[in-house]
Amino acid sequence: MADEEVKVLSTWSSPFCLRVVWALRLKGIEYEYIEEDLSNKSPLLLQYNPVHKKVPVLVHNGKPVCESFVILEYLDHIWKQNRILPDHPHERAMARFWARFGDDKLLHLFTMTAIKHGKEKEEAFEAVLECLKALEEEVKGKKFFGGEEIGVVDLCIGWLVNLGSLFEEAADLKMLDENRFPSLLKWIDRFSKAPIIKDELPSRDKLASTLHLALKSLK
Amino acid sequence: MADEEVKVLSTWSSPFCLRVVWALRLKGIEYEYIEEDLSNKSPLLLQYNPVHKKVPVLVHNGKPVCESFVILEYLDHIWKQNRILPDHPHERAMARFWARFGDDKLLHLFTMTAIKHGKEKEEAFEAVLECLKALEEEVKGKKFFGGEEIGVVDLCIGWLVNLGSLFEEAADLKMLDENRFPSLLKWIDRFSKAPIIKDELPSRDKLASTLHLALKSLK
Repeated sequence: MADEEVKVLSTWSSPFCLRVVWALRLKGIEYEYIEEDLSNKSPLLLQYNPVHKKVPVLVHNGKPVCESFVILEYLDHIWKQNRILPDHPHERAMARFWARFGDDKLLHLFTMTAIKHGKEKEEAFEAVLECLKALEEEVKGKKFFGGEEIGVVDLCIGWLVNLGSLFEEAADLKMLDENRFPSLLKWIDRFSKAPIIKDELPSRDKLASTLHLALKSLK
Repeated sequence: MADEEVKVLSTWSSPFCLRVVWALRLKGIEYEYIEEDLSNKSPLLLQYNPVHKKVPVLVHNGKPVCESFVILEYLDHIWKQNRILPDHPHERAMARFWARFGDDKLLHLFTMTAIKHGKEKEEAFEAVLECLKALEEEVKGKKFFGGEEIGVVDLCIGWLVNLGSLFEEAADLKMLDENRFPSLLKWIDRFSKAPIIKDELPSRDKLASTLHLALKSLK
């Protein structure tokens, strides 16, 4: 589509932004990337997302779309190439369900394993293993969560490929165990090496220090 | 559509279930209502939503759909009458954004006003007012959030019409001020009296004691 102006307000370390950047690249949409400094939010961010004041924000021909899931749905609605949501209504519902799963449960629980102690840490650890088991069952026998091609669930759970092991280090716990979750570990390897995905993965070292600071502020 | 088997696993007091029941009724879909006792979850619930073990669950011709937003999207995809999501891509994105706003911010903040003290309570109170102001701006000049007809945002924020004043009582704070938020208060009145909506609104007294117990368990 010609004459489309697409901008994305983003922060390199955010898993919520990463999925939007991946989707833009997978669909081959030309866009302007604007890095936001969240410690000093730009007037543009405050103008386009006055309610949450958060990244990512997609700006399409001057109109903002906020919230990463909402952006992914929007991108798939407007740009039909390399669809990330299935067409079949029930498969579409299931994809939406799993796309939210990582944010609603796993990301929070990983954080708890890293900042809590004693019984709370233990409970978070057990709950993380339950989540990983659910993902293992979901990806078993498939190349990607989306089937043969990368879909919305892969994009949304994609932060796991580098943040997962960083959370393990921060919590000093083995969670991504290849004997327990062989299909999930194979997916991590496959997804992180996929074209476009690997180009946009932030450096693990750089991400480690950002995560370290973020977890410290929560302790 | 004939020969459709629709069941909903629900709890009468849940704002997440209420939006699904409203949508089913608005669309004139015949369904079987199954009340769940969350203190003693049924085998059906554990079978159909093994990941979250939460209501609501929609079961359509034997296939479960979980999570209230996912269910609403699914219903609108399958049953085209009385659409609850706009067709226009940007309006659709905005509706999705506002539909989530109540759950992501307002419900949590209301709870904080009722269970916290001192500075934390004060901060939650200020943040609730900010949320209400955002909703006031959004509904200003419109009959419903959805425009002339009830849409997904009305259904999702609809818990406000009786839980709002119950949270005020629990927090002992005036938040839904008609001088400050005149359009929102008019919407509350209009929405709560709308056909179908009012038939399915839980009794305020019954809801008050359930909320009281829920808040007590969080303190």
